[in-house]
Amino acid sequence: MQTQENPQVEIQVEDDRTGLSVETLKRAFADNLFYVVGRFPDAASPNDLYMALAYTVRDRLLQRWLSTIQLYRQQDVKVVCYLSAEFLIGPQLANNLINLDIYDQVRQAMEESGLNLNDLIEQEEEPGLGNGGLGRLAACYLDSLATLEVPAIGYGIRYEFGIFDQEIENGWQREITDRWLRNGFPWEIPRLDRAVQVQFGGYTQAYRDKQGRHRVRWVESYTVQGTPYDTPILGFKKNTANTLRLWKAEAGESFDFQKFNEGDYYGAVEEKTASENISKVLYPNDEPIQGKRLRLQQQFFFVSCSLQDMIRTHLHEGDSLSNFHEKFAAQLNDTHPTIAIAELMRLLLDEHGFDWDQAWHITQNTFAYTNHTLLPEALERWSVQLFGDLLPRHLEIIYEINSRFLQQVRDRFPGDGDRIARMSLIEEGREKSVRMAYLACVGSHAVNGVAELHSQLLKDMTLRDFAKCSPKNSSTSRTESRRADGWCRAIRA
Amino acid sequence: MQTQENPQVEIQVEDDRTGLSVETLKRAFADNLFYVVGRFPDAASPNDLYMALAYTVRDRLLQRWLSTIQLYRQQDVKVVCYLSAEFLIGPQLANNLINLDIYDQVRQAMEESGLNLNDLIEQEEEPGLGNGGLGRLAACYLDSLATLEVPAIGYGIRYEFGIFDQEIENGWQREITDRWLRNGFPWEIPRLDRAVQVQFGGYTQAYRDKQGRHRVRWVESYTVQGTPYDTPILGFKKNTANTLRLWKAEAGESFDFQKFNEGDYYGAVEEKTASENISKVLYPNDEPIQGKRLRLQQQFFFVSCSLQDMIRTHLHEGDSLSNFHEKFAAQLNDTHPTIAIAELMRLLLDEHGFDWDQAWHITQNTFAYTNHTLLPEALERWSVQLFGDLLPRHLEIIYEINSRFLQQVRDRFPGDGDRIARMSLIEEGREKSVRMAYLACVGSHAVNGVAELHSQLLKDMTLRDFAKCSPKNSSTSRTESRRADGWCRAIRA
Repeated sequence: MQTQENPQVEIQVEDDRTGLSVETLKRAFADNLFYVVGRFPDAASPNDLYMALAYTVRDRLLQRWLSTIQLYRQQDVKVVCYLSAEFLIGPQLANNLINLDIYDQVRQAMEESGLNLNDLIEQEEEPGLGNGGLGRLAACYLDSLATLEVPAIGYGIRYEFGIFDQEIENGWQREITDRWLRNGFPWEIPRLDRAVQVQFGGYTQAYRDKQGRHRVRWVESYTVQGTPYDTPILGFKKNTANTLRLWKAEAGESFDFQKFNEGDYYGAVEEKTASENISKVLYPNDEPIQGKRLRLQQQFFFVSCSLQDMIRTHLHEGDSLSNFHEKFAAQLNDTHPTIAIAELMRLLLDEHGFDWDQAWHITQNTFAYTNHTLLPEALERWSVQLFGDLLPRHLEIIYEINSRFLQQVRDRFPGDGDRIARMSLIEEGREKSVRMAYLACVGSHAVNGVAELHSQLLKDMTLRDFAKCSPKNSSTSRTESRRADGWCRAIRA
Repeated sequence: MQTQENPQVEIQVEDDRTGLSVETLKRAFADNLFYVVGRFPDAASPNDLYMALAYTVRDRLLQRWLSTIQLYRQQDVKVVCYLSAEFLIGPQLANNLINLDIYDQVRQAMEESGLNLNDLIEQEEEPGLGNGGLGRLAACYLDSLATLEVPAIGYGIRYEFGIFDQEIENGWQREITDRWLRNGFPWEIPRLDRAVQVQFGGYTQAYRDKQGRHRVRWVESYTVQGTPYDTPILGFKKNTANTLRLWKAEAGESFDFQKFNEGDYYGAVEEKTASENISKVLYPNDEPIQGKRLRLQQQFFFVSCSLQDMIRTHLHEGDSLSNFHEKFAAQLNDTHPTIAIAELMRLLLDEHGFDWDQAWHITQNTFAYTNHTLLPEALERWSVQLFGDLLPRHLEIIYEINSRFLQQVRDRFPGDGDRIARMSLIEEGREKSVRMAYLACVGSHAVNGVAELHSQLLKDMTLRDFAKCSPKNSSTSRTESRRADGWCRAIRA
């Protein structure tokens, strides 16, 4: 920015951080290289140049994103919360250039700065936060929702190591870790003041509250902090930018006093840093995840963070939680976030004093479930023992949901013991386990597949028993499946 | 920044990122809150406001810092490299406001924005990168060198957990981990393109090079990546800003292919992430560190990173390494960085093809050593076994240094076997160990204490034998001890 020497000449000075002219983009790029990246142009690495451009585009994105958030708040909108263990959002620079409709200006600004836009775009490290279809579907929904200007937030995990990269070396495949965050990720904004605490382990205690009602409290054995990192998701040639909010697991404040006193400061800290493992690694698709403690921790970690975040937002707006389901529609992308059903029940029952029927009404009307597989053997199960060890209160709640649900089934199909065994949320056998897909069906007001045919086959085959229990099981039309507040309503338990 | 509508009125538009007027500072603060922190003022947390101000001050700092670096490069200056395991630099915001001489303008700009500068200053989390005197001394030297406009760089470790914080809770002391980086540290600039690889473990191999000379190569068992993070250190009311360069340990690219093939992707990655422990925790002063593998790893990690960085800078300027000591004066703050003597020898011998005498000349003329204790029992020792396990090549080099040094002592004091045993770099006994303080004396061209009296007592008592071997041992004057290129020249082996 020049000081102006000649007041006779009329000059339009565009803002460095919002202006879209080639001239302003060039100046903003140079400023960001110097002041954000800390480099003279002649000493800049390819990554430095990419960063400078990314921050230039981000400035323009932020303006739209913050305005969108403000608008949503003013209008008290209902928000789609898309819960997914994976989001394969792809490279951000080129996508944002296209969505902001400034691709040509930026290409020219780079050319006039002696740089090639394609080289800078190539420099970006893609966030490897998904394995394939499931994660890409989640990202596509976020893109579409922003373009349709539907208020939405994607909730997931900020994996430090994404899905491994493949390289071919002398004709041989070589896997390398995907340390996509290594160079920093300029598109995210940390939201440190919105960190939440997540409990694990321990035991439950029954007690009577002041009104003499039976209550339960969960006494955890440890807590992990979840810190949100927000990435704006801009609609295509729209000024609406929604949010992808990913949670990073971090150690709490305190540490093991005993160890410290024994002179083992490092050991005391190390135990705490183990918490960070929860958001360390994205599990590969082709590795069996059942029985993996860390995976169950990951699932609970991000849904607990997300639900606490939704509740805080809701209460901040001054609402009571009794209309929570009128303000939030939570979509479960496959069974990975299904523990959210038990967690919302716990939060409503134990933390916010609701009784069971109220809590169940809110919960069931909040959630909808997208199934991803027709193969019964591929449906996620967790051993009851692992589950109870890590989430003792949630296991109790699931048993209670199951008991009430099976009573409904018995009432409708008296004497059909086989059906009860088939539909129980708990699979008996050598190792008892929790059937997550069944929990998702029972706790949701709508269930769908990823295509109309898939939804139909779910009703006819994989989830036939549940479809039969649903009061309405006809509306699987593609029109309905696009609706932001619940997709297709296939099954109501 | 406003667009200008009225060309009749002369307007001076100060740059958002360099201007020092109250008006510009207010505007820059508001811009940084919106575009860097991503917040509307009414939704900003105290930390958001601190960050916005920190980035406003940092913009002004960066201009001076980058110009200083450019100037040093143009003038081909000699650089003081201060190697220290600790730097207790204190809070940066207030310090930088004072050094930039903009405290009053910023206070007013904050007042006019409805904020109290003191509240924002209080918000800063101080980097807890030192235990006390030794770390504060290092920080004071950096301040003074910048104010005296002496080209200097501080090299150390970017500990993620600093020295523990104390809190008093109901009258009882409670220690909590110092997660000072949790909210981000706006004063640092990552220098990702200057990352280096550090080797550990393995074995050595002797071979003959093309000229038939005896050479050794170190075949390591694993490598850790060191990534530098730079913090500008501005002089008091000077435009000179030197650099504090701290190294973060990170995992390498590849991972355990065997484990991966066994379907244990998480396990394969986990092993790698263990590398990050090296820069995780600052050891407390009052904990015995001898024998702690991780501490020795920390020491070698940061000196190897720093020496590789110095050599790369030197070769980048087009110089040959034979005049390395004319361009770099490396000060060892206590014995923690002493392994640098063996590492520079290794780099010169094994990596750059120097012969022993040349390498030793360069090494001895590069290093100077500041001793911090008069108590012989407090001088750092490392078990030969641990040392050889972690740094087999360095142990060989230390044995060779010792053998040549003891020959000199024998020549000067023939038949004095007690003296040889007293002065050997290797302490015999139940467990053989390397005497780091003695290595520091032998490998340096100058030794000093932290006060004139301390230096005198070192010569009279603790390091008497070494002082007697020194060709000149008189110049411990305070004038000389202030010289940037070597402090007091007490001992020359």
